[in-house]
Amino acid sequence: MTVHTHPQQVSSWLARYQAIRQQSLNLCAPLQTEDYVAQPVPFVSPPKWHLGHTTWFFENFILAAHYQGYQCFNEALNYCFNSYYQSQGPRILRDKRGNLTRPPLSEIQRYRSYVDQHMLDFLSTFGSGSLPGQLALLLEVGLQHEQQHQELLVTDIKYILGHNPMHQPYTQPGARAGKVDATAPMSFATVPEGVYEIGHKGEGFCWDNELGRHKAYLQEFQIANRPVTNEEYMAFMADGGYEHFAYWLDDGWAWAQQQEVKAPLYWYQQDGQWWQYTLNGLQPVAPSEPVTHINYYEADAFANWKGMRLPTEQEWEAACMLHSPEPTAQSNFVESERWQPVAASSEDGFQMLGNTWEWTASAYLPYPGYPRFKGALGEYNGKFMVNQMVLRGGSCATPRSHIRPTYRNFFYPQERWQFTGLRLAQ
Amino acid sequence: MTVHTHPQQVSSWLARYQAIRQQSLNLCAPLQTEDYVAQPVPFVSPPKWHLGHTTWFFENFILAAHYQGYQCFNEALNYCFNSYYQSQGPRILRDKRGNLTRPPLSEIQRYRSYVDQHMLDFLSTFGSGSLPGQLALLLEVGLQHEQQHQELLVTDIKYILGHNPMHQPYTQPGARAGKVDATAPMSFATVPEGVYEIGHKGEGFCWDNELGRHKAYLQEFQIANRPVTNEEYMAFMADGGYEHFAYWLDDGWAWAQQQEVKAPLYWYQQDGQWWQYTLNGLQPVAPSEPVTHINYYEADAFANWKGMRLPTEQEWEAACMLHSPEPTAQSNFVESERWQPVAASSEDGFQMLGNTWEWTASAYLPYPGYPRFKGALGEYNGKFMVNQMVLRGGSCATPRSHIRPTYRNFFYPQERWQFTGLRLAQ
Amino acid sequence: MTVHTHPQQVSSWLARYQAIRQQSLNLCAPLQTEDYVAQPVPFVSPPKWHLGHTTWFFENFILAAHYQGYQCFNEALNYCFNSYYQSQGPRILRDKRGNLTRPPLSEIQRYRSYVDQHMLDFLSTFGSGSLPGQLALLLEVGLQHEQQHQELLVTDIKYILGHNPMHQPYTQPGARAGKVDATAPMSFATVPEGVYEIGHKGEGFCWDNELGRHKAYLQEFQIANRPVTNEEYMAFMADGGYEHFAYWLDDGWAWAQQQEVKAPLYWYQQDGQWWQYTLNGLQPVAPSEPVTHINYYEADAFANWKGMRLPTEQEWEAACMLHSPEPTAQSNFVESERWQPVAASSEDGFQMLGNTWEWTASAYLPYPGYPRFKGALGEYNGKFMVNQMVLRGGSCATPRSHIRPTYRNFFYPQERWQFTGLRLAQ
Amino acid sequence: MTVHTHPQQVSSWLARYQAIRQQSLNLCAPLQTEDYVAQPVPFVSPPKWHLGHTTWFFENFILAAHYQGYQCFNEALNYCFNSYYQSQGPRILRDKRGNLTRPPLSEIQRYRSYVDQHMLDFLSTFGSGSLPGQLALLLEVGLQHEQQHQELLVTDIKYILGHNPMHQPYTQPGARAGKVDATAPMSFATVPEGVYEIGHKGEGFCWDNELGRHKAYLQEFQIANRPVTNEEYMAFMADGGYEHFAYWLDDGWAWAQQQEVKAPLYWYQQDGQWWQYTLNGLQPVAPSEPVTHINYYEADAFANWKGMRLPTEQEWEAACMLHSPEPTAQSNFVESERWQPVAASSEDGFQMLGNTWEWTASAYLPYPGYPRFKGALGEYNGKFMVNQMVLRGGSCATPRSHIRPTYRNFFYPQERWQFTGLRLAQ
Repeated sequence: MTVHTHPQQVSSWLARYQAIRQQSLNLCAPLQTEDYVAQPVPFVSPPKWHLGHTTWFFENFILAAHYQGYQCFNEALNYCFNSYYQSQGPRILRDKRGNLTRPPLSEIQRYRSYVDQHMLDFLSTFGSGSLPGQLALLLEVGLQHEQQHQELLVTDIKYILGHNPMHQPYTQPGARAGKVDATAPMSFATVPEGVYEIGHKGEGFCWDNELGRHKAYLQEFQIANRPVTNEEYMAFMADGGYEHFAYWLDDGWAWAQQQEVKAPLYWYQQDGQWWQYTLNGLQPVAPSEPVTHINYYEADAFANWKGMRLPTEQEWEAACMLHSPEPTAQSNFVESERWQPVAASSEDGFQMLGNTWEWTASAYLPYPGYPRFKGALGEYNGKFMVNQMVLRGGSCATPRSHIRPTYRNFFYPQERWQFTGLRLAQ
Repeated sequence: MTVHTHPQQVSSWLARYQAIRQQSLNLCAPLQTEDYVAQPVPFVSPPKWHLGHTTWFFENFILAAHYQGYQCFNEALNYCFNSYYQSQGPRILRDKRGNLTRPPLSEIQRYRSYVDQHMLDFLSTFGSGSLPGQLALLLEVGLQHEQQHQELLVTDIKYILGHNPMHQPYTQPGARAGKVDATAPMSFATVPEGVYEIGHKGEGFCWDNELGRHKAYLQEFQIANRPVTNEEYMAFMADGGYEHFAYWLDDGWAWAQQQEVKAPLYWYQQDGQWWQYTLNGLQPVAPSEPVTHINYYEADAFANWKGMRLPTEQEWEAACMLHSPEPTAQSNFVESERWQPVAASSEDGFQMLGNTWEWTASAYLPYPGYPRFKGALGEYNGKFMVNQMVLRGGSCATPRSHIRPTYRNFFYPQERWQFTGLRLAQ
Repeated sequence: MTVHTHPQQVSSWLARYQAIRQQSLNLCAPLQTEDYVAQPVPFVSPPKWHLGHTTWFFENFILAAHYQGYQCFNEALNYCFNSYYQSQGPRILRDKRGNLTRPPLSEIQRYRSYVDQHMLDFLSTFGSGSLPGQLALLLEVGLQHEQQHQELLVTDIKYILGHNPMHQPYTQPGARAGKVDATAPMSFATVPEGVYEIGHKGEGFCWDNELGRHKAYLQEFQIANRPVTNEEYMAFMADGGYEHFAYWLDDGWAWAQQQEVKAPLYWYQQDGQWWQYTLNGLQPVAPSEPVTHINYYEADAFANWKGMRLPTEQEWEAACMLHSPEPTAQSNFVESERWQPVAASSEDGFQMLGNTWEWTASAYLPYPGYPRFKGALGEYNGKFMVNQMVLRGGSCATPRSHIRPTYRNFFYPQERWQFTGLRLAQ
Repeated sequence: MTVHTHPQQVSSWLARYQAIRQQSLNLCAPLQTEDYVAQPVPFVSPPKWHLGHTTWFFENFILAAHYQGYQCFNEALNYCFNSYYQSQGPRILRDKRGNLTRPPLSEIQRYRSYVDQHMLDFLSTFGSGSLPGQLALLLEVGLQHEQQHQELLVTDIKYILGHNPMHQPYTQPGARAGKVDATAPMSFATVPEGVYEIGHKGEGFCWDNELGRHKAYLQEFQIANRPVTNEEYMAFMADGGYEHFAYWLDDGWAWAQQQEVKAPLYWYQQDGQWWQYTLNGLQPVAPSEPVTHINYYEADAFANWKGMRLPTEQEWEAACMLHSPEPTAQSNFVESERWQPVAASSEDGFQMLGNTWEWTASAYLPYPGYPRFKGALGEYNGKFMVNQMVLRGGSCATPRSHIRPTYRNFFYPQERWQFTGLRLAQ
């Protein structure tokens, strides 16, 4: 196992553990009890389930495995909260999670408290020193895993509330959610031909799918300074983008025809104007904001219509390393509490992190020399390496500490309930 | 419109309205908030939805239509709580009711209070006299409708809790739930050949589908004194009932093969013994209790295996009029709070009302001269008169005041989440 | 087994066997070899399969079972040509019959010749006497069975050619296919209230489902002298018949919405005129001809729109016995080679046999005292007695010698590829 | 348009046109007329359709577009024989091709003759010179296209006959079909790290998807001298390969579970031995032959089980250029008339062309600078560049003149009715 974790003092682990665990509860605070239960489509999980599953992860992989004498909170929950780990026994079918009215939320909250208390007890047994390597790794993975589910919590909550006929807002924008009205004009930076190193380097944590750092030969290409905006996307729509098969991949055209898609997810046309459901409620589509909630087929069709293309993930990473290796003060992550991508102002310069995930032209496949996690965690990433496309950069629903230029996200090309947009290349 | 309602004083109407409305809340009292939300399969509705829909029925058909100056509680709820009345505008797809996390339960409770208060105000405007005929009819239909949903509340709650991996009980049997261990031996009564009058007669309320009282010629037949028991059904299972196609209708055999059915719904085999999920929790199958949660295909296959058949609905009604025209003190309806059929003791004599609905050999079709309700209520019964089979007699989930010998219930032949069993004829 | 067959001399059997067997080949004569293969939808069988299956019926139930020393033509064909007889071993899935490119037509023709020769040999062993009862019954059933498949051959061929984009005719109308331009005006005959005997009586052959002759009490009713015409049906369409849910059964409305049905099967609108594919090619819809290729939902919706209803099968049979117990010279059966219903002229009087099957308001259920065939033939009718509706009267694709007033045909309410229309009652 | 065609004399074009067109007929020669019709699954097309579609390609893109005064054979055929060219008008749904009993085979043969005659006439108008560039390109594409359909003819015929319960052979092996009993032991060649040129170079024809020749950086890798054999694959099966999820991609595991797959396509177990349906009939699985008819999921699972992996398409191409750039006398293409992969003997050395297509680890995506064909032919390759995996090397069903090391074939990961196997890398 070659994943690195910073050696940290136990006290740092404890503080981080508590902060991340608390953030999951904070994200759910605006919900009604009823909102925790629903699963409107199989790919959306009920908030209750996310809260239980992330807790099960710590209980199952750390406490039950490593904390001698630990008593499981309730053995029956293993069946409810195992997601897809075949090695960890039978589990409820993914599309049946919405049936789990029991255990009720209150019991899941007790479950969280119970596991948290035992995690703190267990970690405290290591005193003021550092944690054993294997334990540190499991803890790190557990925390990163919970952050991933925090992003899913935001997008699943949006799906649940956004598909309710009442269209009620999740919450109001936070105090930090300033507004940018003007967008920077689109310009292109040239990245020269040559051999680039791709993949994670250094001491910090990364997923196994970022490893196998390797050389890739890139031809010269140009990449845009910012994502495509709603205004630009509406021009595509107005030009018959959804009616002309020639812009589309064949599978994408079939998808659009069958689903009768005419606009991004959450968009509604009323009296000639486009509205979108946001986590702050129904609002007119803001022209200057990055377009989001489009899938790979739509992103690819838009780029074809423009006479351009999507960058590959190697191109994206190379450009990011050159122009935008770190978030800036303006970067829009979940902590900004805007709950929606915001326009990139001219002063922001290149912005490749935050706001909206960007579809790349790359299928999700292993890097050369990819070292799959050993054991149960080997099911974490590797077994999904087919039929999905890579996204890069993070979104307004991603925790800031979770993202980095080498981070590889992946979804099926038809999926669009995440905050997903595109950046042009040529 | 030929449906009768007893002329009643307004004060009687008020008392009955309040009692029936309260009973819906009572039935939900044992639930957790989360239980109100789930819709595990399209034919099951969330308890929240039942509470809202029955309220909408009074608001839409009485208050909005007849109470001058009435302000709707919330216009948006019409979309959520209209069930299948095409004449009353668009409505949420039946299989999407589980997505309605909003309005939350608390708002639905406010909705009920608001409508109840206005109903009381409205009815009180008629002073100590009697209600106009049309209003009395709508009120009667609204109350009968709420009673029907009370039965669905019980069976849908059973489905929701019974398909949860925790298998928690809904409640404990009520104090009145005595137990009968011995079953009366099965015997057969002969009903002579001749012309019988079928359909509702007299002053009391009935549904339109019971009208068109008419003569029917019945051949001599014999009918059993009690429903088939679990013990008898287990003999069918032990004899390969689910493995031999020859007992089955072709559609039924296809259903059983495709669903891999080997026993009634809610039955589980553990260590060689059969258990069933009941509203009182998981319990060993009681041999002397009537078998229930079987569908028409299973009922028909059992009868074939026995070398007998199901009675037609005309035969059932004629026999009921002769032998069991009224409930007795032993009859098992929802008010007994047993939540499960109980064994018929020898002293009980013929028992055709309560315990478990009985599948008949009759398809659900209009009687000769059937007068469909006029207007929106015309959608109540008539449009379902195809592809379904008639059931008779009521069950342990039926309100006692809701049943009568002429009452025609109907479900698709594959459905079995209601309390449904069978009685033999030959 | 209570089915009767006329005692006949062996020579009569031989002549009838040869004539009926030959007719199956005659019906296929206009086909291209390719037309014998296709199965465009699961409920349509390839003509090859009909030719093989009817032959297998004689081989399997008569020759293999009763003709000592008989050598099967090819054991492998049992798997191909068993239709639904679970008792006769495994068989190809119904929806896979179109994959049977082998055995080729030429081999099936050899199979027919082989079986026919052996049938003739076998029957000849009984000399100039009569056949043993059980053998006579099997032979009778085999011949009736082949006649049923002859009707299916016609309607399946129509489906295959009618769903081919070339819309080529099957054949031209035969010389006997006179044309009637004027329709008799619709009038109604009254049938008085009383007890009627329903079901087959007498010496001739009938299916088991016609037996259990019994008394039924009918209320007074009126029934039309002829089926509904295309002109009358087009008035329903023009009046928004397919757009107003109130005329429809709920399952029917769902069917029409989902399938986007706007007219009978085989109807196409071109330049404001309605055309229909007939076995004689594409032709303008003839106003005076009986409407056909409508399903139960459409028939029921039309009757509702008219403010009338469909007759029950008992009503239909009673009226037929009174007014139209025998075919007339004008009756339109398959032997007339018109391949399409024709208008009933005023001189024809009541016409209830031939032209088009008529949907009744009755579900297909057993008669009181229904005696199911014993053995494998018990799968012939009884196991289909659920979810289907009864049709009466025969059609232009039915052999004249196959029909009688008590004949019960049955199809699912959504099916309409048979020649199926309606007659009004009130 | 940057696709090259060799300048050729018209007479060479004529000879090649005639030879390739004739080969399509030759491949169908062993069929019965009935075999031309069936479409057992949507991805298999009836042989009739292949014969018509390839002819339509020449008529539509060359004769109708460029031969002044040309009269279409039959306009109605455009609807039948357009495959997926949205720009060329409406067409029959792909899964309805099996309904096309008309036009019959004989008319399609006339269609071929008619178009061939006009093609010869048209080409002859260019005398002894060379063809104009655009015409030469279209002709080249038409011929290459017909060769692709020749491979599909072989595999679709195999599917049709192989899924018929009679399991009849298509034909006997040709005289040239020698047999090799011993397989070379598996060994691995090392390809050094460095920058490689990938994509087509030079004068010969290639598809647009091979263009955009570019540099790729490859890490050092090892690649096997021959494909995996049946014997090696049976060891995987015997070791529980289909029962252990850990070897499988998640989508692959779901596929195998849902389809209950336990072996390659066409394999049957009888009395403990494995048999396979081949175009020469049912035969025992030959241990030394390359395994074929496995899909990407199976290929990937086998490699995981071995602790190795599939090569990427860049690795495959680099290795092929080094070790196997040209077919040899032993190469097994369709002209060898073996109809099945054969064992690689030790003398053969590296064999990367022929026998069986080899799944690579690469998703089918555009090369950098990929120049999509202009116009209707732009639908040829580009629109399929998502959700499919690249295969390399050709098979025993590929025309020898059709293959080259840069050739990119592509299928969905679940498909396995082509001759598809794998080669190991590490």
